[in-house]
Amino acid sequence: MEYTTHIRVRYAETDQMGVAHHSNYAVWMELSRVEFMRELGMDYKTVEENGVYLMLTRLDVQYRKAARFDDLIQIHVKVAEVKSRTMAFTYTLTNEKGETVALARTEHVATDKTYRLVRIPENLLSKMT
Amino acid sequence: MEYTTHIRVRYAETDQMGVAHHSNYAVWMELSRVEFMRELGMDYKTVEENGVYLMLTRLDVQYRKAARFDDLIQIHVKVAEVKSRTMAFTYTLTNEKGETVALARTEHVATDKTYRLVRIPENLLSKMT
Amino acid sequence: MEYTTHIRVRYAETDQMGVAHHSNYAVWMELSRVEFMRELGMDYKTVEENGVYLMLTRLDVQYRKAARFDDLIQIHVKVAEVKSRTMAFTYTLTNEKGETVALARTEHVATDKTYRLVRIPENLLSKMT
Amino acid sequence: MEYTTHIRVRYAETDQMGVAHHSNYAVWMELSRVEFMRELGMDYKTVEENGVYLMLTRLDVQYRKAARFDDLIQIHVKVAEVKSRTMAFTYTLTNEKGETVALARTEHVATDKTYRLVRIPENLLSKMT
Repeated sequence: MEYTTHIRVRYAETDQMGVAHHSNYAVWMELSRVEFMRELGMDYKTVEENGVYLMLTRLDVQYRKAARFDDLIQIHVKVAEVKSRTMAFTYTLTNEKGETVALARTEHVATDKTYRLVRIPENLLSKMT
Repeated sequence: MEYTTHIRVRYAETDQMGVAHHSNYAVWMELSRVEFMRELGMDYKTVEENGVYLMLTRLDVQYRKAARFDDLIQIHVKVAEVKSRTMAFTYTLTNEKGETVALARTEHVATDKTYRLVRIPENLLSKMT
Repeated sequence: MEYTTHIRVRYAETDQMGVAHHSNYAVWMELSRVEFMRELGMDYKTVEENGVYLMLTRLDVQYRKAARFDDLIQIHVKVAEVKSRTMAFTYTLTNEKGETVALARTEHVATDKTYRLVRIPENLLSKMT
Repeated sequence: MEYTTHIRVRYAETDQMGVAHHSNYAVWMELSRVEFMRELGMDYKTVEENGVYLMLTRLDVQYRKAARFDDLIQIHVKVAEVKSRTMAFTYTLTNEKGETVALARTEHVATDKTYRLVRIPENLLSKMT
């Protein structure tokens, strides 16, 4: 239950320190979850259209080495935990030299459109475990 | 039919050129429209809750002088045109030295939640003209 | 002198209207310029490291059809004009159904690190024309 | 050693779930640090111009209640730890009803322009403790 994808750091993602601003890592990890779910045959778009949202409840990122403009960053995402209503993923981001750029973990709950907690749909659960 | 508001350039809005990235100006101008409408007694939040969206159809920005981190930017927004289904605004952005940072114009159409064109609500129209 | 690249609309790029926020188009077009220059054998990263910045001076976007989460958007970028110190590009963004999502034009000046106007380097000029 | 500031959720910060996208919280907390330092008489802009950068090394956010478009969010930031080369802050974000929107902690190291670790300048240290 793991997946690897890549992003290239955009110019707009840099800040005046000359590195990718730390807020973008959350966006990249989200993108890796979306691609992971597509790979599992579960478009996140379709999941939402079916009324289920995987809301983020915790984000923990350790920044190890700055990502720079135009760097190709590999994101390795793993399912860390799946329960009936919550899920957790862990991430390792590395650059082209193989250096660890960041380590992270996110936690999520399943909700409906009105933000009420719901069970994770059976077909999603079974694919994630 | 004009209004003045201010934003302070955020660190995350800078890029590695050391200036505010040009994409943020669209966000600042949107914020000035929201504050303008609040001043007119028309919360944009409420407008949307009533089923009307002012979708942007054109954005034209002339960048004159870079905005930098922590600069206090004045945004002067004016209603340029109002028709039954479309509106246009013009903007002048200036820095604390009074220098023109940017000149801009945006055009909008009123739509419902399904992106279908609708008439701008009477109460909004009357306040804008 | 034209190039085609693609982006997939990120979840973080959507807004509560359920479409990609208009400010992101500027980021996508920037990305298409970077890929175009890479294709021409001129890494924009290297161009900047050599002390030349292509600062944006005008952005004009006509939004035709909303881009949605997970849409694969094709960006077709063309050199519209090249002078000794300025350049312009035009863009056509289309979705997977072939519908025009947006038409746009950007203008740029070459500057050095202190934002002083400079001539566009000869090797870049020759590749762009 | 604590400070309170406010932000209003921008339209561009919402996502199609109808709430502020989680990546923005990092931007808001950064803004609260900048305002906190200004209050202490230490413009972060000036700190950087003097060659010191407070790079973020860890970001840990617990999301408790969604922030929505136009919400006025209070950010309470506290110095949690200061050492010769590292600092940590904790944050409580609350909405206008007094509900806790998020709890967070960030850790930082002082670096020079080349990202080499340096000691936090004496005048900054003394103001932070």
